[in-house]
Amino acid sequence: MSLLVVGSVAFDAIETPFGKTDKIVGGAATFISLCATYFKKHVNLVGVVGYDFPLEEIEFFKTKGINTHGLQINPNKKSFFWSGKYHNDLNSRDTLVTELNVLEDFDPIIPEAYQDCEYLMLGNLVPDIQRLVIERLHKRPKLIVMDTMNFWMDIAMDSLLKTIAMVDILTINDEEARQLSGEYSLRKAARKILTMGPKTLIIKKGEHGALLFHQNNVFFAPALPLEEVFDPTGAGDTFAGGFIGFLAKTGDLSFDNMKCAVLYGSAMASFCVEKFGTERLRNLSRIEIIDRFRQFIQLVDVGLKIEIE
Amino acid sequence: MSLLVVGSVAFDAIETPFGKTDKIVGGAATFISLCATYFKKHVNLVGVVGYDFPLEEIEFFKTKGINTHGLQINPNKKSFFWSGKYHNDLNSRDTLVTELNVLEDFDPIIPEAYQDCEYLMLGNLVPDIQRLVIERLHKRPKLIVMDTMNFWMDIAMDSLLKTIAMVDILTINDEEARQLSGEYSLRKAARKILTMGPKTLIIKKGEHGALLFHQNNVFFAPALPLEEVFDPTGAGDTFAGGFIGFLAKTGDLSFDNMKCAVLYGSAMASFCVEKFGTERLRNLSRIEIIDRFRQFIQLVDVGLKIEIE
Repeated sequence: MSLLVVGSVAFDAIETPFGKTDKIVGGAATFISLCATYFKKHVNLVGVVGYDFPLEEIEFFKTKGINTHGLQINPNKKSFFWSGKYHNDLNSRDTLVTELNVLEDFDPIIPEAYQDCEYLMLGNLVPDIQRLVIERLHKRPKLIVMDTMNFWMDIAMDSLLKTIAMVDILTINDEEARQLSGEYSLRKAARKILTMGPKTLIIKKGEHGALLFHQNNVFFAPALPLEEVFDPTGAGDTFAGGFIGFLAKTGDLSFDNMKCAVLYGSAMASFCVEKFGTERLRNLSRIEIIDRFRQFIQLVDVGLKIEIE
Repeated sequence: MSLLVVGSVAFDAIETPFGKTDKIVGGAATFISLCATYFKKHVNLVGVVGYDFPLEEIEFFKTKGINTHGLQINPNKKSFFWSGKYHNDLNSRDTLVTELNVLEDFDPIIPEAYQDCEYLMLGNLVPDIQRLVIERLHKRPKLIVMDTMNFWMDIAMDSLLKTIAMVDILTINDEEARQLSGEYSLRKAARKILTMGPKTLIIKKGEHGALLFHQNNVFFAPALPLEEVFDPTGAGDTFAGGFIGFLAKTGDLSFDNMKCAVLYGSAMASFCVEKFGTERLRNLSRIEIIDRFRQFIQLVDVGLKIEIE
């Protein structure tokens, strides 16, 4: 049951109220893959970096179990670069720089060895490229999960809708759900989006948790109230990595198992925000992850067999 | 185990994106008492209205089991009046009018028959008056719950802190918790506030649920994603009414039982916002309440005995 992750592998420069970084390794596929390796020993990666990307980072990916055979290195261009500054509440940010560089003409080539893909995670990327990946797989995966952003709703809605129509699960945040559906109520938004193709929708609400919608079922995963949120960059991608990693590991696509996957995604995202970039995700222990997962369960556990008269 | 509710009984005029009302019955103690009667058959009310308050409304209170012996009628003044307009997202509002009227010189007289008070709910009110109520009870209640607002933090912080120091449980919203503690992280804010007197803190996050803090324990009650939120007025008071009503009914102040109380409070608040003012709270059935409570339990129920390797 192989897991394929497609998306950006990039540099970020981040400023938060607590500090700032120079260029550090980031990108949707980086966060997703790294996180997924804690559930699935082998993760196949498709992406592109430039000549400036550190080879030791690619070596590090390999030590974590990420197959980088599908990670292209473009010798003529620089890696994708994003720079942003978070506001004091960490809930909003300004983008300072976006340099597409290698992403400008990214052609997502799927190595033959990746064609056994059963679980496909499409990280945020040009919707046309996401669709191309699906089309280039000889056999439709058992599960396709897609992440996207408001940016594509603004400039490429038609293409975005075409890709959305092809996937099983869409993950977006609350504002994006409202923009995509034209509905303010997330319940109504979910109902509309579930007519666009995906059978399942996850609405990420950051520090306010995540909602999982499937048919008429809804599940809510809380966010853990943390002492410190240091840097939210990559939290949504990390969530996606934990979510699909857990599903790929267990092979169970029931609604109940998806609930667990959402909780594992939330638990992993709660680690991500504790340090800059991928730092906290690089060397987590199994005990830390299980302990964090338990905290999520306990947070909403009523603790009693409630007697309702 | 008698329950005493103190607070405003008033008129509101509300404008939301979905419509507007003329003067309708509102006030913290109205929402709290009405809601609490669904748990506790008899609720003692202390408050004040003016000559303009409809007597049939007081009769209605009585039919619901609210003892209005302590509801003073000031023949020379009008009732407290608040008017507000909600913004499109219903998360913020502008106050258009605040007329204190009868609240200007409110002297909270406790009828002798109320002196057996075991559960005291102090609805939002001048902190000095809230404190006076505690002082006028011959015997300290088993449980004192206090609600307040940022308004008192702005203009009467010293008096507010004196009252807070005397109560068992404080209920405030997330912004108020931040203002009161000077901490952005709600976890840190809670830790600070729990050194100010209360042993338990509830942070209400509106559509994002509620957090219950007690010593090192934390519990999160989600908010139900609703199809329509029509009017948030009174939701926090309704929450408080369900919370203390359930505790007064069960008489169990364990952390586990408080979790249930928070869920019942949340369930009741989810009814409140479905219609203008108190409309939805006037004639709820036991079945509706239990069904709504179950939805809250199901919303976060992982549904599996999760196996953690």
